[in-house]
Amino acid sequence: MSLNPADESFVASLNGVVPTSVFRPVEPRYLEEPRGRLNGQGGLLACPHNTHEVSALIKAANAARVGVVPYGGGTGLVGAQVMPEGPAPLILSLERMAHIRAVHPEENVIVTEAGAVLADVQAAARGADRLFPLSLASEGSARIGGNLATNAGGVNVLRYGNARDLCLGLEAVLPDGCIWNGLTRLRKDNTGYDLRNLLIGSEGTLGVITAAALKLAPIPAATGTAILVVPSPRAAIDLLSLARDMLGEGISAFELLHRQGLEFLSETLPDIRQPFPDPPEWSVLIELGLIAALDPREQLANLFEVALGQGLVLDGLIAQSEAQRDGFWAVREQMPEANRRIGSVSSHDVSIPLGALAGFIEKGRETIAGFGTFRINCFGHVGDGNLHYNVFPPKGADRADYSHQGGAIKRAVHDLVADFNGSISAEHGIGRIKVDDLERYGDPVKLSAMRAIKMALDPQGIMNPGAVLRI
Amino acid sequence: MSLNPADESFVASLNGVVPTSVFRPVEPRYLEEPRGRLNGQGGLLACPHNTHEVSALIKAANAARVGVVPYGGGTGLVGAQVMPEGPAPLILSLERMAHIRAVHPEENVIVTEAGAVLADVQAAARGADRLFPLSLASEGSARIGGNLATNAGGVNVLRYGNARDLCLGLEAVLPDGCIWNGLTRLRKDNTGYDLRNLLIGSEGTLGVITAAALKLAPIPAATGTAILVVPSPRAAIDLLSLARDMLGEGISAFELLHRQGLEFLSETLPDIRQPFPDPPEWSVLIELGLIAALDPREQLANLFEVALGQGLVLDGLIAQSEAQRDGFWAVREQMPEANRRIGSVSSHDVSIPLGALAGFIEKGRETIAGFGTFRINCFGHVGDGNLHYNVFPPKGADRADYSHQGGAIKRAVHDLVADFNGSISAEHGIGRIKVDDLERYGDPVKLSAMRAIKMALDPQGIMNPGAVLRI
Repeated sequence: MSLNPADESFVASLNGVVPTSVFRPVEPRYLEEPRGRLNGQGGLLACPHNTHEVSALIKAANAARVGVVPYGGGTGLVGAQVMPEGPAPLILSLERMAHIRAVHPEENVIVTEAGAVLADVQAAARGADRLFPLSLASEGSARIGGNLATNAGGVNVLRYGNARDLCLGLEAVLPDGCIWNGLTRLRKDNTGYDLRNLLIGSEGTLGVITAAALKLAPIPAATGTAILVVPSPRAAIDLLSLARDMLGEGISAFELLHRQGLEFLSETLPDIRQPFPDPPEWSVLIELGLIAALDPREQLANLFEVALGQGLVLDGLIAQSEAQRDGFWAVREQMPEANRRIGSVSSHDVSIPLGALAGFIEKGRETIAGFGTFRINCFGHVGDGNLHYNVFPPKGADRADYSHQGGAIKRAVHDLVADFNGSISAEHGIGRIKVDDLERYGDPVKLSAMRAIKMALDPQGIMNPGAVLRI
Repeated sequence: MSLNPADESFVASLNGVVPTSVFRPVEPRYLEEPRGRLNGQGGLLACPHNTHEVSALIKAANAARVGVVPYGGGTGLVGAQVMPEGPAPLILSLERMAHIRAVHPEENVIVTEAGAVLADVQAAARGADRLFPLSLASEGSARIGGNLATNAGGVNVLRYGNARDLCLGLEAVLPDGCIWNGLTRLRKDNTGYDLRNLLIGSEGTLGVITAAALKLAPIPAATGTAILVVPSPRAAIDLLSLARDMLGEGISAFELLHRQGLEFLSETLPDIRQPFPDPPEWSVLIELGLIAALDPREQLANLFEVALGQGLVLDGLIAQSEAQRDGFWAVREQMPEANRRIGSVSSHDVSIPLGALAGFIEKGRETIAGFGTFRINCFGHVGDGNLHYNVFPPKGADRADYSHQGGAIKRAVHDLVADFNGSISAEHGIGRIKVDDLERYGDPVKLSAMRAIKMALDPQGIMNPGAVLRI
């Protein structure tokens, strides 16, 4: 079924449907994505003020069979927010719907419009002495609706879950323009199919999230942070298991670092203080957030001692000040920027069952070696089995000389991930960049069910055309 | 679209499709549900040995347009497992598919067939020094596939989530008989729509769950249990908030008890030891599961002292032995049996936003008083905002004289729940008993989306006809 462009006749059809103040010029930023892999085409940009305007716009788009591209903070890494081809779409930005509707500290709930910037949601929670745990690199510009539409992850998933796990209720406009009021603050509600989780992670292809009720958590009384040198990725997994036995849910983050990444940091961002004079082959950044009855530094020291006895750690540093803690985190948080400056041939956001993760890393090295002398920076949310597995040209080489190998390397890494029963998109989603990968690696029965659901809820295919499913 | 009965011609069509050993006689237990509110009709009972047989049976049922009623442990309380009317169905019991496929302690994952009894899944986890936290009254006979299909709750939801939150991956047979292999052990996997959560809680109307990968947790090093007398439900909520600030995720259970329930226990089960000589108006059972670095009894004593200072508790007992702990839990766990012996006029499984819960209880009392001198036992998983709100005739009265008021009372309670933005089915689901309620109280846009999804995945309506949706 072919779509129509958001042309002048469509604009004319909106006359009186929404105020003209809804429309804004399509600045270039609405057509770019962070890694510059896709360029969106222009179209009509609408920035509605409220859910009723969203509803009116989508009803009109559905009637006119015009594609709608929902737009949050524009920080997605798989191109769900830009539509490079096809009839010019209606770009629907939630930027004006950024109001925090309510904070319920006694319920550990915050209710916010979808256009609120993630950092503002965090700040509103903190203002009520609560923690909104979703935390990721782009939190200063990502908007919560986009975080939910892509089921965003980040550094606190290990303890608090991903965006999906933090959501209690949604308000959303479905592809026919109807408003679903599912903005419940309930912890338990078994009344019918889980429409909330169906919309979460559907990347705007089944509707537009306009508001959400989200879980908050108590702010841990004290935080402790360490970087521990481990002899191997296997030891990192065992260390996590030990830490869980000793500290329960108190582990907020558990991130893997590889020597290659630390060297990239030295090379590209020399002002970042390195934790060790000689970058260790493997290390983990661990953070505890504990109740007042426990001293995090003492607990980290205990953990280190027990782990040392079991051969799971070789060396370690426990942050002794807030500044030191910030320094440790800077190493982790600046890693994507260092990678960007070095320039990868191929980068991958994968997850592997924890028990198979060490085997994957070993086999990955062999696989990449088959392509030449590449450098691998394999790092990330190892506690969730989620690795950012990025492949770079040899030192001193020109990336352009290797980029022709990118496709084959990506394919080999993804094949390996599939062999290990992993996922080719752990936290970034499918967007437009991984549609082919989903078709290749996705379960065919699931894909067919997805298509049936898409056709049922959006029979004209107006919602985010070309994202997730080719249809 | 009308269905055909699972008659002799259907049986004949299965000849050679599955071995005849798959079929068993339909004993009465397959047609009963625990509260005796619905009686299923006979039909054809199939107990397949493996997923391929499930697939073959459903393919055949779909081809012959025969209804399929999935059957787990038969413990559901809303009648999803029995079909009282319509053409005789194929009853599909998963009882032979009870194999625990694998335990991965290092990953905190267990993979099991759907027919495994919940208590056996718990035991398998414990055998690997891990906890499978789903725990509910019927765990000795409920099967995990049914727990997932109904998104079961229980006493540990506060800490570990409900069945949905404990599931990483599913294998399921969809209504066309195709097998979806989504049995991932991954913590993060953003590859397309969330089919897993769509099946969880769909009560067998979108497919049959045949296996699941489930989350395990470390076994807490030490457990502490107390019953604390609180001056009001509001104080119970505030106590929970205080306990969370002091103890973080260490609170495994937080259950509300009312004097009425304790009196029912004295009356019907006098052997159960009462915690206090005079049953207090309101009390909570709190359980901590802590790491080795913390002493639960000491922490409970601390909590009690701080709460006492804030006027949130009046009295309390901390279990000093395993036997005392068991005694405390017996009070809570025998409550449904005491209720059953008294005999309710109407019972309700509702949830309310935590901040509104005290107001609901107060208003509920007024509402019920308008119907006469009924007794209310309002108890349960207050930490999740989930109350079992049961209404009984006056003491000494004959229930039969009041049962005609049951419908009006139910309606009044559910209307009140809706006024408080609550749920009319917190943890039991819709089944067949609450289909009318869902139509009355459910969001119409959500209901319409549910119908579209049902039609898309099960166009002939063979899966659990009449459950959840009338269509």
